Amino acid sequence: MITPNRTERVVVVGADAAGMSAAHQALRSARADGRTIEVVVLERTSDTSYSACGMPYLISGTVASEDELIARTPERHRELGVDLRLDALVTEINTEKRTVTYANSAGVSEAVDFDKLVLATGAHPVIPPWAVDGNGDLTPGILPVKNLEDARQWLGLVVPEESSDSESTRTTRHAVVVGAGYIGVEMAEAMVDRGYETTLITRSSVMSNLDEDMSARVHSALVEGGVRVVPECTVVSIGNVDGRVHSLTGSNGETYLADVVVLGLGVRPATELGAAAGISVGDFGGYLPDENQSVAENVWAAGDCCEVIDRITGTRTFAPLGTHANKQGRICGYNVVGGKQQFAGVLSTAITRFTNPSVHVEVGRAGLSSDAAIAAGFSPESLVTVGGTASGYMPERSPIATKIIADRRSRRLLGVQIVGGRNSAKRIDTAAAALWGQMTVDDLASMDLSYAPPFATVWEAVQLAARRLADRL
Amino acid sequence: MITPNRTERVVVVGADAAGMSAAHQALRSARADGRTIEVVVLERTSDTSYSACGMPYLISGTVASEDELIARTPERHRELGVDLRLDALVTEINTEKRTVTYANSAGVSEAVDFDKLVLATGAHPVIPPWAVDGNGDLTPGILPVKNLEDARQWLGLVVPEESSDSESTRTTRHAVVVGAGYIGVEMAEAMVDRGYETTLITRSSVMSNLDEDMSARVHSALVEGGVRVVPECTVVSIGNVDGRVHSLTGSNGETYLADVVVLGLGVRPATELGAAAGISVGDFGGYLPDENQSVAENVWAAGDCCEVIDRITGTRTFAPLGTHANKQGRICGYNVVGGKQQFAGVLSTAITRFTNPSVHVEVGRAGLSSDAAIAAGFSPESLVTVGGTASGYMPERSPIATKIIADRRSRRLLGVQIVGGRNSAKRIDTAAAALWGQMTVDDLASMDLSYAPPFATVWEAVQLAARRLADRL
Repeated sequence: MITPNRTERVVVVGADAAGMSAAHQALRSARADGRTIEVVVLERTSDTSYSACGMPYLISGTVASEDELIARTPERHRELGVDLRLDALVTEINTEKRTVTYANSAGVSEAVDFDKLVLATGAHPVIPPWAVDGNGDLTPGILPVKNLEDARQWLGLVVPEESSDSESTRTTRHAVVVGAGYIGVEMAEAMVDRGYETTLITRSSVMSNLDEDMSARVHSALVEGGVRVVPECTVVSIGNVDGRVHSLTGSNGETYLADVVVLGLGVRPATELGAAAGISVGDFGGYLPDENQSVAENVWAAGDCCEVIDRITGTRTFAPLGTHANKQGRICGYNVVGGKQQFAGVLSTAITRFTNPSVHVEVGRAGLSSDAAIAAGFSPESLVTVGGTASGYMPERSPIATKIIADRRSRRLLGVQIVGGRNSAKRIDTAAAALWGQMTVDDLASMDLSYAPPFATVWEAVQLAARRLADRL
Repeated sequence: MITPNRTERVVVVGADAAGMSAAHQALRSARADGRTIEVVVLERTSDTSYSACGMPYLISGTVASEDELIARTPERHRELGVDLRLDALVTEINTEKRTVTYANSAGVSEAVDFDKLVLATGAHPVIPPWAVDGNGDLTPGILPVKNLEDARQWLGLVVPEESSDSESTRTTRHAVVVGAGYIGVEMAEAMVDRGYETTLITRSSVMSNLDEDMSARVHSALVEGGVRVVPECTVVSIGNVDGRVHSLTGSNGETYLADVVVLGLGVRPATELGAAAGISVGDFGGYLPDENQSVAENVWAAGDCCEVIDRITGTRTFAPLGTHANKQGRICGYNVVGGKQQFAGVLSTAITRFTNPSVHVEVGRAGLSSDAAIAAGFSPESLVTVGGTASGYMPERSPIATKIIADRRSRRLLGVQIVGGRNSAKRIDTAAAALWGQMTVDDLASMDLSYAPPFATVWEAVQLAARRLADRL
């Protein structure tokens, strides 16, 4: 279907971090080569390039307007040369005929040919059966926090009506957050900020990608911050009043009042289109790009729809994060116009916090947990050290608990976890850099890190933990 | 002079970070081996194990009492088994006879035999000729910030007398800080905190181990914070009133009022004792330990009296910092009882800040400056990127300027410098880890660093700079 001598066309499906990074990088790289290409981006919603990670802070009221979450408007993308088509729901891709079929904003089916295709379709929120009615529609009051439309709906739920400001009409509002990963913890913060009595229910433990002893520290901080935390519990049913959620009943037999319910159960790769076109998906349901992010001839994929390589184990994992989406999108942009850039894998590095006037806790992690290390065939040894973010005599000092995990035989650093107060968790990047370089626990213990009394202890907290573990191995 | 079968004796000269780390590690390591050793520490002052880096914060009033700077008291050292002798001025060491001679607190000469000797004699502040009278005594009002005795004198100078609190007797007090390295900048903060009109004079530029463009950012912040900064100026003479300093005249012909003068001109290794005993010193005047910190048979050295190996150039440098002193002291402690631990070199990583209600600036650096990279035979390419410490829509966001320096041919990362607002500079540790691992600018650009809106941008600031430089190389 390719017309000879026409301008090469790159079609991108999905217009958030991965897709738009790919689109703009392709345009830039082509321009640098003195070539002209056409880049069409098809997006099923009417939003582009927004910070999904910022949505809890929009919902909490920390961020005043959704406009602030928009990195680039549709107009700006178009000015920069992208043929951006919003409200365009892709229904089929055909990798042999090189066509993408979509329903346009008027609901009319259209097709566009491509020379190169980038799949950046992201992920779907996990929606449990108890959250939907017989038609598969979410029960009012129950919502995920996946896209900007969700955030708008959240604002409608949490911002009190004017009339409710009078003392007489105020009643206690109850929120239940289901799932205690990053989104769960951040939404718990938002719900407490909005004045809800907040319950956090998790099937396992709080932030279960931490080791249990570190998870317990986060758990305690959440309780201190006013959150009722219910671990080892799943939701078995909901109670409705007037068609809206009113309560949840857990596997522990308890019933929890719930004017609103946050679905923070994670996401699964949105790979239906590619799978229907014969593109392989893996154990996590994600595409399986090669090191150049290619998934088929003339087809690349980037972002949350992809599985990734864990740099420590060398095996595939699923790590749906904006950092990877941006990097992979950019790599696709290079490669669709002839580049050979490679994605170098992930360490599952992550950071979050829970803060309010009662408590401030920060959490960082990188690499393998102890359980993951055992599962990968390592012989992990670990310890936790509690230090300070500044010298003991400085007012800036807050506590920082660091867990270091290393392989007993090779002394290789496998993972680091941090739970601490203000200015603690970003130190995880030091560990991430050491993990990236496949360093040993001895390397981390001996490296030349920065010290001055307002910023650190003379043995930097992460390093102190590494030194103690090095002594023990 | 060794009596057969007596307990092995380790003598340490100097009782701050390096010396006491060595003393305690030697005791611990011997104990772990089931051996008993005797550890004698000779200290010329009456202070041990205090945070020299904390002194500007004691002088500013941030730290309420000098006791808070004491990591371990003399009593505690003795309880832990160290034979600590204070006010013991060592006058001679003899490495053949294995004796150390010292004047005790009563001024009486004593000698102690050693089996193993650790030199941890630190460094002397650089005292310029204009600061002293004909007898070599400091003119009253002029002081360095080297040891705890200096800090006590500073408190006597800067804390206002009770009587001066009345409005009528208040007059403007003037401070001049000479030298704009770390101590200079930190003491400028302290002087402004104490209400002095503060002038900072430097022979070159502010924090001259930064590249000029980054130094200029610090300079501007200091001015914004109320400091008069006078670069490219040396002091040529002082004016006295009643035997106290009253003003300084610079090489620029200007005269500056000065009720107090801070000497922040750096330090030189205190190696007289070893040099007199035939132990080599290097171009910087420091001892030249091998990788095990040994400087002669049965003699080791640690801390500010030593030169160190720059890990990037492989050549010797002088980097008098508590972080190295602690690490080297510990290594000596292992090695004097038979260990073979190695010191792995330095990156000249450092961090500081200047803060008051008008401005908050943080500075971090690691590796080579552009000039140092050229001097070492590299072909440095660099750029500066200004980013944010948090997502643009978060209230935590402050600016962060990052300079990345890499070798054009090998793409190896050579140095990183950060100047920014609150929570910016500690990110230098990520760069330090990458430099430690001899990574390329591409490694830093692609590594998996942590992101969440309150903590970073989706391309972490340091990484964004690396990516842009990688694109340019």
